[in-house]
Amino acid sequence: MPNAYIVGAGQTPFGAFPSESYRTLFTEAFEAAVASVDGSLNAEDIDEAVVGTLGVGGRQLGLSAPAVTEHVGLHNIPCSRIENACAAGGFAVRQAVQAIESGMADVVLAGGVEVMTDMSGDTTKYWLGVSGETEWERLTGTTFSGVYAQMADAYLDQYDATPEDLSRVAVKNHANGAKNPKAHLGFSCSLEDATNAPTVADPLNLYHCCPTSDGAAAVLLASGDVVSEYTDERVRVAGVGAASERVGLADRDSYTGISASQEAGKTAYEMAGIEPDDLDFAEVHDCFAIAELLAYEDLGFCAPGEAATLLREGVTDPDGDLPVNTSGGLKSKGHPIGATGTGQMVEAFDQLTGSAGDRQLDDPTYGLTHNVGGSGGATVVHILEQEVAR
Amino acid sequence: MPNAYIVGAGQTPFGAFPSESYRTLFTEAFEAAVASVDGSLNAEDIDEAVVGTLGVGGRQLGLSAPAVTEHVGLHNIPCSRIENACAAGGFAVRQAVQAIESGMADVVLAGGVEVMTDMSGDTTKYWLGVSGETEWERLTGTTFSGVYAQMADAYLDQYDATPEDLSRVAVKNHANGAKNPKAHLGFSCSLEDATNAPTVADPLNLYHCCPTSDGAAAVLLASGDVVSEYTDERVRVAGVGAASERVGLADRDSYTGISASQEAGKTAYEMAGIEPDDLDFAEVHDCFAIAELLAYEDLGFCAPGEAATLLREGVTDPDGDLPVNTSGGLKSKGHPIGATGTGQMVEAFDQLTGSAGDRQLDDPTYGLTHNVGGSGGATVVHILEQEVAR
Repeated sequence: MPNAYIVGAGQTPFGAFPSESYRTLFTEAFEAAVASVDGSLNAEDIDEAVVGTLGVGGRQLGLSAPAVTEHVGLHNIPCSRIENACAAGGFAVRQAVQAIESGMADVVLAGGVEVMTDMSGDTTKYWLGVSGETEWERLTGTTFSGVYAQMADAYLDQYDATPEDLSRVAVKNHANGAKNPKAHLGFSCSLEDATNAPTVADPLNLYHCCPTSDGAAAVLLASGDVVSEYTDERVRVAGVGAASERVGLADRDSYTGISASQEAGKTAYEMAGIEPDDLDFAEVHDCFAIAELLAYEDLGFCAPGEAATLLREGVTDPDGDLPVNTSGGLKSKGHPIGATGTGQMVEAFDQLTGSAGDRQLDDPTYGLTHNVGGSGGATVVHILEQEVAR
Repeated sequence: MPNAYIVGAGQTPFGAFPSESYRTLFTEAFEAAVASVDGSLNAEDIDEAVVGTLGVGGRQLGLSAPAVTEHVGLHNIPCSRIENACAAGGFAVRQAVQAIESGMADVVLAGGVEVMTDMSGDTTKYWLGVSGETEWERLTGTTFSGVYAQMADAYLDQYDATPEDLSRVAVKNHANGAKNPKAHLGFSCSLEDATNAPTVADPLNLYHCCPTSDGAAAVLLASGDVVSEYTDERVRVAGVGAASERVGLADRDSYTGISASQEAGKTAYEMAGIEPDDLDFAEVHDCFAIAELLAYEDLGFCAPGEAATLLREGVTDPDGDLPVNTSGGLKSKGHPIGATGTGQMVEAFDQLTGSAGDRQLDDPTYGLTHNVGGSGGATVVHILEQEVAR
């Protein structure tokens, strides 16, 4: 049984902070994570650090982990950077869990950071593009909106779903994000707004695409042996799953599901010993609206083709049976690549410890986080459990 | 007691292969690793993969792990890229060990790959530079030769060592590399050659600097529970240590030692339950000749200031008490960044399984590998043990 607990989690606001550096943002997130521990945890207590970042923009591309960890006073410990495109942060958490489960560390920092808005839009597009499949996507000029548009096209064609359902994802997530002071686009929008927005890559319009964000988020994990030294909270990493998939869309068996998400979810549920029905909330990777619909199906929230129904019926609304993206998701909260997966953990930790403010759910026990790299080339899923009745 | 075994290891030749891609090189190394397993191990047996690469040159910078693992037939398993500059490969092996020790995987691939010679020298210098400290090194025009030259200057000033001792490192490692068919610069050189070479960054001359190489190397690890399904060899990862240090030289307490190497070595020795005296050979990170001398001291092969004496007395020659860099080291075998650390593992595995050809040592039991990122911002050390009397 997994033995890793989350004892603290914090983040910067996500947004456009072009004058901030990866070090200043990382420091702010680190300090927020330390402050969130209800006991006392210091830099000296940390045995190992893992940093998720794509390193957008050609700044510190090598040794970027020690470059940020030295800046928050972590010295002489194992530090490494993990990269899996937009899933870098989620994989950093997984690696932190492995470090603890292996017995090599008792307290581990998993952080994520990205600065993206200090470049022109074209440059940002280039840096995001380097996570795409090279020969048939990137070099033919297909950006990620184009790749996800193909998935949306296939989905709308195959199932009883409409472009309006894509807009419903935006409406729900913006309504949630409007209650999140850390959200990049923290405003609500109407179904009309979200339907009549300019096209980005048909059928995806502007409201069906997440923003380009800056930000950092940090998670502190501890082994079961030491967790009580730091906190009375018992937020356990009950399940972990990860998988890969062909990087290029054209090489896959299906455009209407991501096998890496299916496999990662399956592994995580098995490890946690629960079913999708047991979940009280989920943070899923909605880089584009279609991605949230696929996630519902890939993670077993509903059968294939039924995601739009789930959404229309309000099941994934905050007052539904399975609230999804109470944080606002990538759509409204924002998507600072390397910080996105650790940012999902911040929301899950806050929900499970009763610290989610206006977004607080009613005593949740199980929460799931789902972080996707590229268009599904790598996915990581975590299931968190609040062990203490609150 | 660590429970991870190396069951196979293989590599491409290291050299200048500008027309090869990161995928073709990775595939060649993977196939060599699979072929080196004395039983049968297939892609389907592999539970997880970790790929070390800096991603020099702006090719597939995001999702670069699944981009190569899908190319060798690994699908639907956790794949991630780890980066710690020149120590990326060694950290990939460490992460593979953690995956096994955590109980999440039984068979793990740790690979490393880099393509560097398909760019101009200036571009390569830029890509290597992104692993240097930004404000005081990179942006002032200090390259890695300049950083290591400062360390060499300080060392020669502080201790009874001369530029000729730096040349002796080159002479020894080239003599070893001349026996290694995979070496990039597989020729021997005289002390005169190595002393009279053109200056690169005083006191370092051309023979005191390793080449810029292309290549890939792959290591297959298995848990103690399943190792006998694949091989009768028992090459155990007996010790693992890693640590960080200030990225920038000017921020450190000492220029004549790397604290991350000292800390990583200490952790690895303790885990393995051995002392430096118990080692039968070592592969150390000699990106510049001075780095090999520092490694002798940082890893406890001798006291501070005595490295040159050790070298002059032939202790680290192939017929000495502690042969170092029988592969030729980074100096002669080559230094394809992400592949260097996994390449060190190939030499250690070959030595411990009696497969090192003309370089074979006499029945070694313990071998150490030492992989440094940047000028010491991150270091990882492994100790391998041949458990079966041969």
